[in-house]
Parts: sequence; C-alpha cells; structure tokens
Amino acid sequence: MDTTYLKENQDRFLAELIDWLRIPSVSADPKFHGDVLKAADYLKARFEEVGLDNVELCPTAGNPIVYGEKLVDASLPTVLVYGHYDVQPADPYELWDSPPFEPVIKDEKIYARGACDDKGQVYMHVKALEVMKQAGEFPCNIKIMIEGEEEVGSNNLGIFVRANKEKLKADVILVSDTGMLANDSPSIEVGLRGLSYHEVEVTGPNRDLHSGLYGGAVANPINVLCKMIASLHDENNHITIPEFYNNVTELSTEEREELNRVPHSDDEFKKSIGLPDVYGEKGYTTVERVGIRPTLDVNGIWGGYTGEGAKTVIASKAYAKISMRLVPSQTSEEITALFQKHFASIAPSGVTVKVKPHHGGEPVVTPTDSVAYKAAADAMETTFGKRPIPTRGGGSIPIVAMFKTELGLDTVLLGFGLDSDAIHSPNEHYGVFNFMKGIETIPHFYHNYAAAMK
Amino acid sequence: MDTTYLKENQDRFLAELIDWLRIPSVSADPKFHGDVLKAADYLKARFEEVGLDNVELCPTAGNPIVYGEKLVDASLPTVLVYGHYDVQPADPYELWDSPPFEPVIKDEKIYARGACDDKGQVYMHVKALEVMKQAGEFPCNIKIMIEGEEEVGSNNLGIFVRANKEKLKADVILVSDTGMLANDSPSIEVGLRGLSYHEVEVTGPNRDLHSGLYGGAVANPINVLCKMIASLHDENNHITIPEFYNNVTELSTEEREELNRVPHSDDEFKKSIGLPDVYGEKGYTTVERVGIRPTLDVNGIWGGYTGEGAKTVIASKAYAKISMRLVPSQTSEEITALFQKHFASIAPSGVTVKVKPHHGGEPVVTPTDSVAYKAAADAMETTFGKRPIPTRGGGSIPIVAMFKTELGLDTVLLGFGLDSDAIHSPNEHYGVFNFMKGIETIPHFYHNYAAAMK
Repeated sequence: MDTTYLKENQDRFLAELIDWLRIPSVSADPKFHGDVLKAADYLKARFEEVGLDNVELCPTAGNPIVYGEKLVDASLPTVLVYGHYDVQPADPYELWDSPPFEPVIKDEKIYARGACDDKGQVYMHVKALEVMKQAGEFPCNIKIMIEGEEEVGSNNLGIFVRANKEKLKADVILVSDTGMLANDSPSIEVGLRGLSYHEVEVTGPNRDLHSGLYGGAVANPINVLCKMIASLHDENNHITIPEFYNNVTELSTEEREELNRVPHSDDEFKKSIGLPDVYGEKGYTTVERVGIRPTLDVNGIWGGYTGEGAKTVIASKAYAKISMRLVPSQTSEEITALFQKHFASIAPSGVTVKVKPHHGGEPVVTPTDSVAYKAAADAMETTFGKRPIPTRGGGSIPIVAMFKTELGLDTVLLGFGLDSDAIHSPNEHYGVFNFMKGIETIPHFYHNYAAAMK
Repeated sequence: MDTTYLKENQDRFLAELIDWLRIPSVSADPKFHGDVLKAADYLKARFEEVGLDNVELCPTAGNPIVYGEKLVDASLPTVLVYGHYDVQPADPYELWDSPPFEPVIKDEKIYARGACDDKGQVYMHVKALEVMKQAGEFPCNIKIMIEGEEEVGSNNLGIFVRANKEKLKADVILVSDTGMLANDSPSIEVGLRGLSYHEVEVTGPNRDLHSGLYGGAVANPINVLCKMIASLHDENNHITIPEFYNNVTELSTEEREELNRVPHSDDEFKKSIGLPDVYGEKGYTTVERVGIRPTLDVNGIWGGYTGEGAKTVIASKAYAKISMRLVPSQTSEEITALFQKHFASIAPSGVTVKVKPHHGGEPVVTPTDSVAYKAAADAMETTFGKRPIPTRGGGSIPIVAMFKTELGLDTVLLGFGLDSDAIHSPNEHYGVFNFMKGIETIPHFYHNYAAAMK
C-alpha cells in the first residue's frame, strides 16, 4: 500500500484526534455526562465525513452507541468493528505533567486521558476508513459500533446487541483496545482476563468515636477491613477464597513454555515501574502472573480522617473497592458469588459488612488458527516487517465473551498500544508511530480477510 | 452557695458560649487559622469582662496562649487553670444533623464542634470566675492559661511553660477537659492514657498502574498496607510490636477489682454505640480495655480510586494514620521508636515505607490522696449530692505529664463531659446541665482547696 496519503495527512489526523480527546468523556462520573454525549456527537460527525452510511446515535438506557456501516456487496464477508469513546476518570489530576484533557504531543507521543484507551485506537479505524475511501477500495462490508460505557461495565451494550442481532450480523469482530509487546515486537492478544469488581463497606460503631475514650473496646472498622483484606491472600499470594481456583484452566507444561517465550525481562519490567522486586503468586513467572493466573487487587480504600494533621477518631465505616481478574474457565457470576459469600463470612462479630458488585466481565481465549487471526497477523507482518507473537494479556474486555455468546462471533484483538502507555494512570499517552501504524495496518486486515474468505 | 445568680444568668451564659462556638477554631487545618486567632481574641475579651488582670495573648511559634490572673494575696495558695480553645476538625460534615459551627440547643444540649471539648468546659471556668466576682469571693489566687494547639499536639505549650516558670508558679493545676460517668454518677479521672500518632505511606510502583495489565505481578501498596496493619494485632488482639508491652504497669488483682467496681454495663455500652458485641484484648474487661491497656487504632486510611463507580487501578501509594494509646509507664518516645522500627521492618520487599510521627503524649496517674483531689471530690459531692468515683479514663491529655515534669505540679481533672457527648465525632454536644453544674462546682473547689491549704 502506498503510504503517501498517510504521511501527507498525518498532522490533520492528529489534530482531529486531539480535538476529540479534549472532550472529557468520563463515563464513571455523572458530572461529565454532557461531555460524554459531546464525544459521541463528535464521532458521529467523523463517521459521516468518511462516508459511512446509516450513521446514527443508537440510544440506550445509558450513553448512546455510535454506529455506522459501509455495505458494499452482500456476497462479501462482513467485519463488525467495536471500540469505546468513554474514558477512565483522570484523577489524581495533580500527577499529570499536562492536564489530561488538554492534549499535547511530546517526544512523538500524544498525552491525554483516552489517547490510547480507547479514543486513539478507535480513531485509527475512522482514519483507516478514510484511507480506504480515498483509495476507492472497500474489500468487504464494514459495520462499526463504538460504545460509551466500556469503563463502567458496558451494562447496556449487551441489551443493544441482543435487540439488534440482524443489524449487527457479521462474520467476525475486530477490536483495537489492547496492546502489543513493543514497537519492534508486534503481537496480538489471544487471551484476556475477566473481571469481578466490588465495593465493600464495613460498619462498626454507629458513629465516629473518640479513640481515647473507646479505643481498645470496639471493633475499629478500618482495622477490621485491613484484616479481612489481608486474609484474602496466603503467604504464597494464593487467593484464599474457597473454591476460587475450582474452574481455573491450568496450562500444560508445553503451553507454559510457549507462553514464556515472549520477549520479557523482569529487570526491565521492574525498572519500568520503579520497583525493586517482582511480586506475586508463588510458582509462576511474571508473564504467567499477568496472563494466565487470576488475581485480587484492592483498587481503592478509604475511611476515617484523611485530612491534614492528626484526628484521634475511630471511624464508623471503612470502604474498599476490590476487584478480581479472572481466567478461563472462571465466570464473573461464579466468582462474584464466591467473593460475596466469603467476604461476609470472614467479618468478625462486632461489625456488619455490605458487598456491592460493580460490574463483571468474562475471560476469553481467541483462536489463533482462524481466518481472521491469520488475516490480522499477516497485516501486521506486512506493516511491521515482523510476524506478530500471540500473547495472553492481563486486561479484560468483557464484551468479547458477550459477542461470542450473543452473536456467535469470534473477536480479533488488533491492538497497537504499549504497556508503558499508562492507560488508567496519570500521563496516559499513545505513540504517534502506533497511531499511524494502526491506520496503515487496518486496511490490510480487511484485504487479507476478504481474500481468504472468498 | 446561692444558685440564684446562676439561674438568672443561664441564658446569657449559654448565648456567650454559643457565640464562641460559632468561630471554627480548627487547629489541624491551616484554612481555619484566622478563626483560631478570632477565638483567642474572643476569649481574651471575656477574661477582661470577668475582671481578670494582666490579660494577654501570649505569642508562640504557633497559636497564641490566652492568659489572665486574679492574684488576691501572696499568702494564699495559687491554682493554675488549663484548657484549650482549639477544636477537632468537624468532618465528615454530612453526618452532622445541624452544621458544626452553627450551634443549636436541642433537648437541653448544646450541639456544636467544641461544645464539650473543650470550649464548653473552658467557658465554665470563665463564668465561675464571674460568679465569684459577683459574690466578691476569691478564696485563693487563680491563674488561667488556655492554649490553641491541644488538638494538634500542644507543641508550643511546653516551650511556653519552660520559658515562664515564674509567671505560672502555682500549687496545683486544674483542668476541665475530661468526662464523668453519668449526670447522676459524678466521677473524677485519675488516670489518662498517652498517645503515639503516626502517618504512614507505602509506595509500590512509581505510578498508578492498570490492574489488568499489571495485577498479580506487582506489590499493590493498598493490599500490602492492609497486610501490615492486620499483622499489628494477633488473634487475641494483643499488639505484636516487639517490646511494646515491656513497660506497661500491670495492676494487681485488688486494683483491677477496684477499677471494675465503676458502674458499667457491657449491654448499655454496646447499645450506646450500636454494636452487637464488645471487642478487644483477650483477658480484660471493657473498663480495663479503655482504662489500663494500651491500644492501636487506625484513625484514617486512603489510597487508589475512591470516587463513584469502578476504576481498575493499582495505586502507586497508600496511606494510613495510626495511633497508639499508652498506659503508665510507657512513654511516647519509646513507643514511637518501637513503632517506626517495627513498621519499617514488616514491609515486604517490593514496597518502600515512610513513617512520620505526628505527636505524642505521656500517660499519667494522678494521686487520689492529695489535698486538691479531695477538694475536687468534696466540691462535686456538694453540688451533685454524691461522692464522685475515681476512674481511669481512656483519653489522653498529654500536657498533664508535661506539667509534672516542667512545673513539678499535680493536676486535678475536674471534668463534666459524658462519653456520649460525641467529642471528635459528628454531632458533638454538651449538656446544659453539665455546663451549669460545672460553673456551680468550680467555686466550691477553690473554697475547699484554699481552706485545706491554710
């Protein structure tokens, strides 16, 4: 493919993305609701510009889904593209070197919340369509569906998909919401962990108490919560919830060897995140710990006095957000039930416990011997000059399992991010190289896929 | 004593206290600094009104000390009154039934931050002086010194006391900053716990990480902090810090029996704070747990995402405020050193830990066979019609030990608060009965004390 058009239009592509990134489409926080809708409108207008048909904002009980399609020939295969235009909350704001919603390009990287996850990767698809339109080449039918609630659990997407099976009929799903190993080491994720996410509340006394007058004679909910959380792992960092590992698919020695063949250095890993040591479940490598093993992490904790100085208080309540990453064949429903039951059971008398599940997602493994996987691998080999490696990623894209269940379709995870992009963190960024490489690679996928399906 | 004047002026006394309570003199939070100074000015003006001499705001490196005196005769004994005009932070504001700095009287109680601790109790002394002035009776010399940094560790009071030993020369110290058992069960605290207060910070990765990409392979500082905190107590709720109990004075069986003779019901205790069970160190009663045993409580904890909804983040840092209540003969210096050493030692490799001591205070036991104690007990017996019981309280008034060291003086803790006053909590209040009873009782103390010292 001639990349002249890409080079000539790179500045404009980036400027358009930056305009979109300026809109703080944070789905988790109601105060950004208007911006979420603005981000959807912006995308709808770009869909129309690149010549998609039947472009619409599909209403849901939550944020709208932006939809468009290019149906060239009913005899050709159809690819359904999925992505999301909502972004993670940006706090803590004070840790950003530049404001999260005032994008800047520095050292060939775009810095902004959503730069990679997932606005930057979605916008590659929009510009890939422009490139194909400009070249007059649409080798297959394309439907594109970008939702606004991925970061809060995609609660309405399943309903939409179930209600629109005919509209969304396709042969495969293409998603760019994952990463690859390095810019000189392309890879495609073939396994994703699921998620079970909870907010827990521990209540001790019926009001905040003076720690001098009451300390020692009442269950302090913060101490209790810490003890409960601490008990969720044993000394080998195994999770102690009964039956938690019952359905974990154990890999064979050969599969584990294959998995550990990906380029990875614990030293570089430690250096990249400033840690003196790796950490985790005994008996597994870092690659295995993030790829094929379930985990439990506290994502947030709060209670008592957290201001300046000292306050000698025993809080009435303590809270935490606790999530588990799941692997095949765990299900979020199973693990959510196990967690709720176990967490309530370990509460000492003297406190009451509430567990509120936030959202879940299912773990998936995508096949590497499919036509679509090969089309994606060939596309990357063409544009990167190297055959991509299949990897098992640690993140969760809950909808991949849902697409399989509801539409019967497999998904190809053609992602161009890097682990170092700091998605969900301050200073999220996305390489200009990665953005442009994505735009270049995506049309190859359509060509390869259409050709193989003939 | 004729209580006519008290009754006739009760409304005005309350109105004056309420005006003072309106000033949010929160010493822990710099944004209230101007209000702290306003509260000092207000008190200075009241000192002048009741005829104290040499009234002044004594500057310190922090908040000023309000001082005044009534020296009637060098041959008479001198009582030095101590209290504080600063108050605890009022958050969480949303749990107050009425705003903390808009005092209201409801069900014969004054609701406001500081209503009891310690503005309400200080103001009893001011009005007791007015009552004595009106009656023309000053049976001894009185010096009164009210500081503005008690809730943040009284860091500058010691310096002031050391520099003003001549000015503060007295025979005994009188403090109203404690409670009694019940309105129909007067008592005087004779033991106070000390305090060692720390803020701890646990740092894992050098930035917030995506829990999907990294979860399972890095030390999550919140999980680690919970584990560290959980390890500070064993299964019997003993504190596990090595050498922590080395200097704890154990009471004899007789002393413990005596102590447990105070009116106390675990059922009522549980009911008053809405807990299904008492809790605490194995082998001790509730009265002992709050009176003669050291404790460790987390006063606040925070880290990660604490907003609405779900964020799948592994935080870079987690924090907690941890305090220990100390008993004779522990010292805050000893325990602070033990805590710092131990807390650093239990950090797993993969995280770094900082421990910042906030402030400390020494435990004390005051004698019950002194002239001053008897004068106080007699005063209460006169006004309550019942002999007060000596009790060992759980709270800390660090300056009591300092007065002993620096001025060689014992302290009498003539307090009129109740445990149920919710000091340091939302809806702090102080009974109108208690406020007026304090004003009535204090002059009796001076009379009794002067008479016994003749």
